[in-house]
Amino acid sequence: MSCSDITYHRLMGRWAPGTRERLQQVALELFRRDGYDATTVADIAGAAEVTERTFYRYFTDKREVLFDGQDQLGAAFVDGVAGAPTGATPMEIAAAGLDHAGAFFTAERRAWSRGRQAVIESDPALRERELLKLAALADRLADALRDRGITDPQARLCADAALSVFRTTFARWLADGEGRSFGDLQRETLSTLQSLSAPNQT
Amino acid sequence: MSCSDITYHRLMGRWAPGTRERLQQVALELFRRDGYDATTVADIAGAAEVTERTFYRYFTDKREVLFDGQDQLGAAFVDGVAGAPTGATPMEIAAAGLDHAGAFFTAERRAWSRGRQAVIESDPALRERELLKLAALADRLADALRDRGITDPQARLCADAALSVFRTTFARWLADGEGRSFGDLQRETLSTLQSLSAPNQT
Repeated sequence: MSCSDITYHRLMGRWAPGTRERLQQVALELFRRDGYDATTVADIAGAAEVTERTFYRYFTDKREVLFDGQDQLGAAFVDGVAGAPTGATPMEIAAAGLDHAGAFFTAERRAWSRGRQAVIESDPALRERELLKLAALADRLADALRDRGITDPQARLCADAALSVFRTTFARWLADGEGRSFGDLQRETLSTLQSLSAPNQT
Repeated sequence: MSCSDITYHRLMGRWAPGTRERLQQVALELFRRDGYDATTVADIAGAAEVTERTFYRYFTDKREVLFDGQDQLGAAFVDGVAGAPTGATPMEIAAAGLDHAGAFFTAERRAWSRGRQAVIESDPALRERELLKLAALADRLADALRDRGITDPQARLCADAALSVFRTTFARWLADGEGRSFGDLQRETLSTLQSLSAPNQT
């Protein structure tokens, strides 16, 4: 397969810094150009000028190229929740988790995230995987809230609400022409959630 | 396989009333006794004294025995939302959907639902299927809210919040020793959600 439009500098060595990111970038370009199903690990490794074996040092399979980073995202939620001030309300504690996790989504990351989302939307199995990963993230957040002394059903409801805010923010942040930061959009989305009991305009 | 503990009156005919319910009851008993994986459609049909062909008139596969009814549940949400009074807040409109759907879960249904949940918890693939079905239910509810003139991100946030209340209520309703009605628990869960911004006790 020709990869003339994807040119990269030759690696210094197998563990060169940036290999993971380059594999992700190359994979995303191939997924978008040729389709997710049609792209193989061999194609990705070839385009990134590494061996398949090197690919498998970073990712268990092709799908994980798109879902890598979920562990760090979960850890960011948990750290934010753990660091929220004593005496905060359950929703304020969850909001601290959201703020902390939101820092993940920098302006530099936006183009990658948009491309990734387009690939996920193109494939029902990837969409299902995304939903399940978000559910796992909500479970992790609920555990972190329980560690802060919040009992059920509050912890469960609060974690679900926070994940809904996160997911909604993410979709807004990826929208064409949207230029506001993830953090700003997320704070606005949270306050929209809290206004749902206010009178409807219609 | 011996089914001596599962005895049923012989059918009057292939379309006898109650066949669907009897197949579900028999399947659940076999899933619980022998395990979900070990139970075949032939086992279920045999224990219910119908042919496999009759089984497939009601269910596309073994899994659907557990997820049948999701369409009616979704329709109940939608009807409740459509019937909410003009001028209600988004959350009040969603609550009307919850109330309407809650009527589904009668006292008579509780034992079946508890058994079903035990089977689902025993199998990771069934747990994933359940999460995906709940996500589809949230999407359907979001559409119903949009039909009521609620725009995004409100519709999405409100649908997610309502589904979280529903799911949390469902877990509470199934808990050992819990005797309150689904509707009562659901109204309590909704008011708990609305109190999440109140000061934490810890």
